[in-house]
Amino acid sequence: MKIAIDGMGGDNAPQAVVEGVVSALKEYSGIEYYITGPKEKIEEELNKYKYDKNLVKIIDAREVVSTNEHPVMALKKKKDSSIYKALKLVKDKECDAIISAGSTGAFLAGCTLVVGRIKGIERPALAPIMPGKNGHFMIIDAGANVDCKPSYLVQFAKMGKVYFKEVMKKDNPSIGLVNIGEEEEKGNELTKNAYKLLKEEAKLNFVGNIEPRETSKGDVDVLVCDGFVGNTLLKMYEGVAMTLLKIIKEEILSSGLMGKLGALLLKPVFSNIKKKFDYTEVGGAPFLGVDGICIKAHGSSDGKAFKNAINQTKKFYDNNVLEKIKLELQNNM
Amino acid sequence: MKIAIDGMGGDNAPQAVVEGVVSALKEYSGIEYYITGPKEKIEEELNKYKYDKNLVKIIDAREVVSTNEHPVMALKKKKDSSIYKALKLVKDKECDAIISAGSTGAFLAGCTLVVGRIKGIERPALAPIMPGKNGHFMIIDAGANVDCKPSYLVQFAKMGKVYFKEVMKKDNPSIGLVNIGEEEEKGNELTKNAYKLLKEEAKLNFVGNIEPRETSKGDVDVLVCDGFVGNTLLKMYEGVAMTLLKIIKEEILSSGLMGKLGALLLKPVFSNIKKKFDYTEVGGAPFLGVDGICIKAHGSSDGKAFKNAINQTKKFYDNNVLEKIKLELQNNM
Repeated sequence: MKIAIDGMGGDNAPQAVVEGVVSALKEYSGIEYYITGPKEKIEEELNKYKYDKNLVKIIDAREVVSTNEHPVMALKKKKDSSIYKALKLVKDKECDAIISAGSTGAFLAGCTLVVGRIKGIERPALAPIMPGKNGHFMIIDAGANVDCKPSYLVQFAKMGKVYFKEVMKKDNPSIGLVNIGEEEEKGNELTKNAYKLLKEEAKLNFVGNIEPRETSKGDVDVLVCDGFVGNTLLKMYEGVAMTLLKIIKEEILSSGLMGKLGALLLKPVFSNIKKKFDYTEVGGAPFLGVDGICIKAHGSSDGKAFKNAINQTKKFYDNNVLEKIKLELQNNM
Repeated sequence: MKIAIDGMGGDNAPQAVVEGVVSALKEYSGIEYYITGPKEKIEEELNKYKYDKNLVKIIDAREVVSTNEHPVMALKKKKDSSIYKALKLVKDKECDAIISAGSTGAFLAGCTLVVGRIKGIERPALAPIMPGKNGHFMIIDAGANVDCKPSYLVQFAKMGKVYFKEVMKKDNPSIGLVNIGEEEEKGNELTKNAYKLLKEEAKLNFVGNIEPRETSKGDVDVLVCDGFVGNTLLKMYEGVAMTLLKIIKEEILSSGLMGKLGALLLKPVFSNIKKKFDYTEVGGAPFLGVDGICIKAHGSSDGKAFKNAINQTKKFYDNNVLEKIKLELQNNM
């Protein structure tokens, strides 16, 4: 397969991007990489490593879209940007997939406008996979659509189901509707109406409402919600965990010798926990519903995270997820 | 002051309720308590303690509204329930305040229908105070109004400001709009329009959007949002923290001798953290915008939590918060 890589996307670009590509070259076979960005900069990074030069192409791009720019405006103006050129490679079918760790707004807008939607999809949705206590779970939509209609949520559920089944290898994944109450009649206009539609979908393993406090357990595989609520879940998840770990650290530092000794002895325990909650292990978040494999890597991705995003992209491709999503939607329409 | 106490509300009623009242009797002066519930049951609990009998009245009520019942239906049907009778005491001005740890739905519906709204208030809002890393913060609305108009959020901000100033004793409290993005143009229809209205309120210390991941720091005092998002914040906060602490515990238990020794040494650190995050310390959540002092205690309240809710109710009364809320709204209308 051929992957277009936004060489200048993310906080640590292009170093982390190139490092990720070179690691992936060693680990996975059958992939060609098209890295977009200023030729000399990308080359300089690549020259730090030994790698098979036949598998890496540099596509020169002189501009960068930053996270501070208006996504749509920036894409329209900067046709010579690393993100635009990577998107174009997918649009023109020169590449099968795109990965970017750059501006989420520009990525989502670009995938929709340049790559385009799958026919019949009302709104594509961002679908990160999160590590939960008892297993991984997906949040769909995590921020692409802040105002949703009930029918969007049904499509999110269908797309999430296919992805979770094929990439996360879970048969008949459970679908939950994020709601502030378990009972069917709870919630706002959107969730009440989405519930009615979801329970009519015989092919979905719809398990009803799931309350926010239950989400982090990971007992429900695919969490369906509008992008405002999904983004809130995602950010609270990261935020609360980080705040709590920071408080633990501060309390330990301000405790006596015994506390510090205790912390030392617990170091392996804490590093285990950190590993368990390391969402970079999963890779990036797929943007489902666009007519191409579009993976958003975390903005702070390091080389390893970027390599994992490549792994995820490969699974997306190898398992023919895009075609299966199209099929799932046709069968149900 | 006179407080109506729903004697049968909460998981541990009437034991915890009576225990809380008796502790409060010892600690605070100038309060009379009207406990509603089956006379013999409440008496049985009270008889376990020595207390000033002149300050406690039992109002016999033979029914209980459970959390499984439809709030409005239950209130209409069960006029002899502990919650209804407590609400009636406030409605009839026999009591100045009501505290209940019972069904949140029934409490919110009852306060609105029986006690009634303050004139000019579009929607009353539930406003719990949460412990954050750097200080306490309020979430308003935390679940009373799942579908909101922008103007509601402005009223939430004004009511929250008064309460936070008077009860939490913070001058000119900062007001943040919960949103998935910092910039003014980010968010959904509701937040975009609420932002425009909030920034025009010269008397509010409006600090702009606050992203969910920042909320638990406690750097912004009053977090304004619709009830769906607020409830999500609240429940994620509790849920993620609990999940994380559970994981830490499990990892320690499955670690070797050294890990267990480490945990033992860290015990004071963890109990410090638990204390810091003990939201029962703050008391209950005020339901702001109704024409009476209405405090919702946590369903799982023990005696101490209930006592703290009484303390909060006293501060609400002593600082004349209700009148100040009315004034704040008049001055701005």
